[in-house]
Amino acid sequence: MGKTAEIEFTWPKGFYSDGLHSGLRKKRLDLGWFFSEVPASAAGVYTTNKFCAAPTALTKKTIALKQQLQGIVVNSAIANSCTGAQGQQDALTEQLLMAKKLEVKPELIGVASTGVIGETLPMEKIKNGINKLQKTQNAKITEAILTTDTHPKTISIQFEQAGKLCTMSGFCKGSGMIHPKMATMLGFVVTDAKVSGSMLQEMLSNEVETTFNQITVDGDTSTNDMVVTLANGQALGQQIPELIKDTEDYQVFKEVYHQVLSQLAQEIARDGEGATKLVEANVLGAKTKVDAQQVAKAIVGSSLVKTAVFGGDANWGRIIAAIGITAADINVDTVDIYFDDIPVVTQSLGTAFSEEKVAEALSKDKVTITVDLHNGDKKGQAWGCDLTYKYVQINASYRS
Amino acid sequence: MGKTAEIEFTWPKGFYSDGLHSGLRKKRLDLGWFFSEVPASAAGVYTTNKFCAAPTALTKKTIALKQQLQGIVVNSAIANSCTGAQGQQDALTEQLLMAKKLEVKPELIGVASTGVIGETLPMEKIKNGINKLQKTQNAKITEAILTTDTHPKTISIQFEQAGKLCTMSGFCKGSGMIHPKMATMLGFVVTDAKVSGSMLQEMLSNEVETTFNQITVDGDTSTNDMVVTLANGQALGQQIPELIKDTEDYQVFKEVYHQVLSQLAQEIARDGEGATKLVEANVLGAKTKVDAQQVAKAIVGSSLVKTAVFGGDANWGRIIAAIGITAADINVDTVDIYFDDIPVVTQSLGTAFSEEKVAEALSKDKVTITVDLHNGDKKGQAWGCDLTYKYVQINASYRS
Repeated sequence: MGKTAEIEFTWPKGFYSDGLHSGLRKKRLDLGWFFSEVPASAAGVYTTNKFCAAPTALTKKTIALKQQLQGIVVNSAIANSCTGAQGQQDALTEQLLMAKKLEVKPELIGVASTGVIGETLPMEKIKNGINKLQKTQNAKITEAILTTDTHPKTISIQFEQAGKLCTMSGFCKGSGMIHPKMATMLGFVVTDAKVSGSMLQEMLSNEVETTFNQITVDGDTSTNDMVVTLANGQALGQQIPELIKDTEDYQVFKEVYHQVLSQLAQEIARDGEGATKLVEANVLGAKTKVDAQQVAKAIVGSSLVKTAVFGGDANWGRIIAAIGITAADINVDTVDIYFDDIPVVTQSLGTAFSEEKVAEALSKDKVTITVDLHNGDKKGQAWGCDLTYKYVQINASYRS
Repeated sequence: MGKTAEIEFTWPKGFYSDGLHSGLRKKRLDLGWFFSEVPASAAGVYTTNKFCAAPTALTKKTIALKQQLQGIVVNSAIANSCTGAQGQQDALTEQLLMAKKLEVKPELIGVASTGVIGETLPMEKIKNGINKLQKTQNAKITEAILTTDTHPKTISIQFEQAGKLCTMSGFCKGSGMIHPKMATMLGFVVTDAKVSGSMLQEMLSNEVETTFNQITVDGDTSTNDMVVTLANGQALGQQIPELIKDTEDYQVFKEVYHQVLSQLAQEIARDGEGATKLVEANVLGAKTKVDAQQVAKAIVGSSLVKTAVFGGDANWGRIIAAIGITAADINVDTVDIYFDDIPVVTQSLGTAFSEEKVAEALSKDKVTITVDLHNGDKKGQAWGCDLTYKYVQINASYRS
């Protein structure tokens, strides 16, 4: 990667934001917005759950119009999902309120909601809240979108395009109901680089396959998932061409984009409901990339692997069982498994290992499971978390 | 159904069995056998996990030879899975030891193991154990096959074939790593009715689709799963024709068989690791039966639904999310959901309900969730259990 540097979270040039407590939650921030001072190229990926929530459907439709967007209003606490015609109307009202306040066309405003399914938004509170939102550059929105998350998940990277310093910043939320099929929960990435909407969409659709689509917390896919990216070109300062495919700038942008999405996705897995550890599965030697990713995701998705990691138990039989039930092309005699770099299975047979060293590997904040299928040369990764008492506690009483 | 009656567990005519403590486990029974005095028609369904364990593979191969079997030796504690050539040899040795003791051909003996993956069997203990097994009619084998199960799971039904009183008895084990794709864990059904091996196989393969394949505890599929049925014809006492398709006797046998498999499957779900409740999902109004079964299984398989049931929380949004992510044909505007007979969702929208009454429905030993898709006339069911602190506790320390 070229000259890039991760920095403290900051808004790229020409982006503004704010967040506040509107009364949807008891105390915590619950409403926010962010927007570009000019229309930005926009791309999005959305839940494949058939019960797509009203705000998600509206944002999808809006971005599809011209692959442009200027801003997004987001609330937590209530998902505005399974709310019928009322829910659709409420999402449209939010879009109109923000458009009116910013004096831009409603077709340039997206809407996102997250929280409990089946409740309608208290529109008076939303209306008052939007009225109070300011044009600032604070990071309050990264808090306002959280639900059971324990902390905001953000990243900012600086890089160059056309010789100018650009910034790409992303933030997301997500902790439960995480098993994305196209995208997960809410993820937002903004940049002042200049990229066409169609190129941005192509890159996003590709990159989510190896990032957001490769995490899982509990195997459940939300109705409100979306990852949206806005690129406003404001770093460049003058009329220069948009990013051109396969140039050096393109490569840099692509790698920065991948890093942003990958890091945000891992942050979600690490902060999975009740989690104490991030679990990374690295799969090597697969016949196809799809096989590798599928096997990696099966490992981090297994309840039995997740509880074994929580208990610090080197129960590799559960990893074998998870691998064996995927549709991937497997040679059942050639599988190696490692915890960190300690081999526990060689050629599909258990191998003697130091229980002490493996226990140490399993007690780390990040547990790394590597599987070499010895069946090809393709690789894949996935991220999940351990399954703990606290996961049960959180979810036995979420709504009530 | 004709004149049938459920009775205390008993062995059908001509079946014998025994179980004992051979030293694989600390104290509990861990080895058993059962056999028919004459060769019986046999049928089996087996795990689809690619890492099929040695005993499972051997039994599959053995039954495939002539669709006949006379007996099976079973151990718990060690699964003899991922044990390579040594494991295959050990399974063959078990087969030979039992065949020799009963003075029958090895091709008439099946082998089953369940327990930890990756450890080899201590063959001295197995050998001594098989030497001590007797020709009795006790039910000790129903205990000897258990692992984390809290109690034996058995059923016996009496019915008539060719005017003679027959018995069908089944027993099974399974508590974790339960998410069968073709069969689950260990399930055995024996009957003194007279049925050809091919007919038995056809019925078993059909019946597991709506019984054992419709349960889930944790979404993980074991390497050792099998359901095997033996029919020895000994109730009939003389040379009479085998069961003929589409006769009245055939219907009775099929219904008894379904009841046996369905009840055993539900017992596994009810006794899921750490479970406090059986969860039954009934799906109506689906376009196809596959759709109905898929939706039902998605509901009982969702970690979030399972924790909500544990917490007694009427969080129907999680049911909607689970339904929406299946491949089933869904009309997103016509879904009704009930807890017991209390409607909580009508036409895909939340409807007012008495929290008190729903809390009562959710506090029962058996929680019933009914979903009417209003999209056709096909039905399906699935069974699972709640996800509890105890599940995490059991599985954070299973191997260690």
